[in-house]
Amino acid sequence: MTLLIACQQSSRDGFADGLRELGPTLDVRIWPDAGDLAGIRYALVWKPPQGVLASLPNLKVVFSIGAGVDHVLGQSGLPDVPLVRFVDPNLTMRMGEYVCMNVLMHHRRVRDYAELQSQATWKEVWPQPGANELRVGVMGLGVLGCDAVAKLAMLGYRMAGWSRSQKKIEGVECFAGEDGLKPFLARTDILVCLLPHTPDTDGLLNTELFSGLARDGPLPGPVLINAGRGKLQVEADILKSLETGDLWAASLDVFEEEPLPSASPLWAHPRVIITPHNASISDDMAVCRYVVEQIARYEKGEPLENVVDLKQGY
Amino acid sequence: MTLLIACQQSSRDGFADGLRELGPTLDVRIWPDAGDLAGIRYALVWKPPQGVLASLPNLKVVFSIGAGVDHVLGQSGLPDVPLVRFVDPNLTMRMGEYVCMNVLMHHRRVRDYAELQSQATWKEVWPQPGANELRVGVMGLGVLGCDAVAKLAMLGYRMAGWSRSQKKIEGVECFAGEDGLKPFLARTDILVCLLPHTPDTDGLLNTELFSGLARDGPLPGPVLINAGRGKLQVEADILKSLETGDLWAASLDVFEEEPLPSASPLWAHPRVIITPHNASISDDMAVCRYVVEQIARYEKGEPLENVVDLKQGY
Repeated sequence: MTLLIACQQSSRDGFADGLRELGPTLDVRIWPDAGDLAGIRYALVWKPPQGVLASLPNLKVVFSIGAGVDHVLGQSGLPDVPLVRFVDPNLTMRMGEYVCMNVLMHHRRVRDYAELQSQATWKEVWPQPGANELRVGVMGLGVLGCDAVAKLAMLGYRMAGWSRSQKKIEGVECFAGEDGLKPFLARTDILVCLLPHTPDTDGLLNTELFSGLARDGPLPGPVLINAGRGKLQVEADILKSLETGDLWAASLDVFEEEPLPSASPLWAHPRVIITPHNASISDDMAVCRYVVEQIARYEKGEPLENVVDLKQGY
Repeated sequence: MTLLIACQQSSRDGFADGLRELGPTLDVRIWPDAGDLAGIRYALVWKPPQGVLASLPNLKVVFSIGAGVDHVLGQSGLPDVPLVRFVDPNLTMRMGEYVCMNVLMHHRRVRDYAELQSQATWKEVWPQPGANELRVGVMGLGVLGCDAVAKLAMLGYRMAGWSRSQKKIEGVECFAGEDGLKPFLARTDILVCLLPHTPDTDGLLNTELFSGLARDGPLPGPVLINAGRGKLQVEADILKSLETGDLWAASLDVFEEEPLPSASPLWAHPRVIITPHNASISDDMAVCRYVVEQIARYEKGEPLENVVDLKQGY
């Protein structure tokens, strides 16, 4: 059995070593050293170079490193084989860390207190609402979104969720679809976006959406936290809304262009917290374990898990 | 029924208004306008001026604003009446916010990423351990400590607790007493201190203790988070241990002297996060509700709640 690793970034050697250790019967190759293309049954990819997947006549399954698969779907001539997303408790836990931390940091005014500390000034920033006075809304109620909702609820926040199709989560107000968006935003002080990038969600985070967020909360204004995909957001609109007050602050882990160009005004904005798309990085060995396990299932004729619905894009 | 508010800080007028609203039969006075001292049955205090409590011959109960009562116990001639601590779900929630946020901020290297952001630099900081690779230890397993342990466990951290007397918490390794301290520290990457200040805990957070923390964790070194009381820590020792590497970073909400003097080198330390003793501020109206309720219990002959054991000091 032959597997090809085709990545434009990431630690390709790490994946190769891990796969060889966990799946000794696997013949692991790293693109562009692909050898006989007809022999390749599996591909493990992150932003695969254009045309690579189309050149594999006997490909059976494509595995995505990462929960989102937009980096694969942009490919022309994508073969008609199952595309499997990476879903892992570790990935979920890491995203929960990122989301809880960033909600807390805006809520508890970390940037203001850092500024006061730099001036050696002992001073309170008022008001000091409790988590139970803040309404957090999570867009995207998949595995990551549901976990974030549960953790934020446990910290005391008043939670709601929004998703394309109606979901039910005990104790959480769930909104859905286009009709549900406006009332969802209107009750939200802190917006957390964990949506996948699809044609439907492209550029969704724009001035119009921001202007619909709650303006009567206990913080100086609405907060945006995006750890989904950069293409969900219009960065010029984020800057404009920070100016008008439709947004008070933001945490961005993803960007229209990555790495975020050094000329972007986002870097220097005092109310924007930037991280380099590392909210939840797939752990190399966890990816390898997952792929080896899925291949074993497939070879035994069992169904693959977390196969992407290509129409929905996730 | 007459109640005297005796505070050297805090919003005395806010408490008076709240108590009058919630307990209309209560005659509320604010020190030093105490009127007839013999008529005063109750006192609500935060750092009460010396001698005030001793001057009240018919005092029945003292209520402390705040969960810690060290600010009262320092008084000479403290009358032999019950001293009631303020215990409140809101206070617990606020402390949970502070503790989770500060653990996450050190774990996820917020200061490093803020530095990179200020340079418009897109770069990862390695390693990136998950919460499940970090061992957090909480000292003090009262209401606040147990809540913090539960919340950190839910975020994925490997938890242990230490307390004076042995506690049992499901799924959490509990250490106790002097014998338990060394092994507790030896397995702890991030130390959270929520102990009360008593003669036993005075100056407990010193170089000797720091040198016992784990040095084989995935962070550059051990982290101290103190939201208990300032007198638990020796600030010169914190600075020394940050120098030697026995500590890598710290979050301090409390200080030997408050406000922290502007000359303190802690303010400017790049790995110290300072807040002005506001991890969990008692909400004025919640304090008022609590006091009115406890007075009603007492007047009906029912037992008071959360009475301090004066020998233990909490």
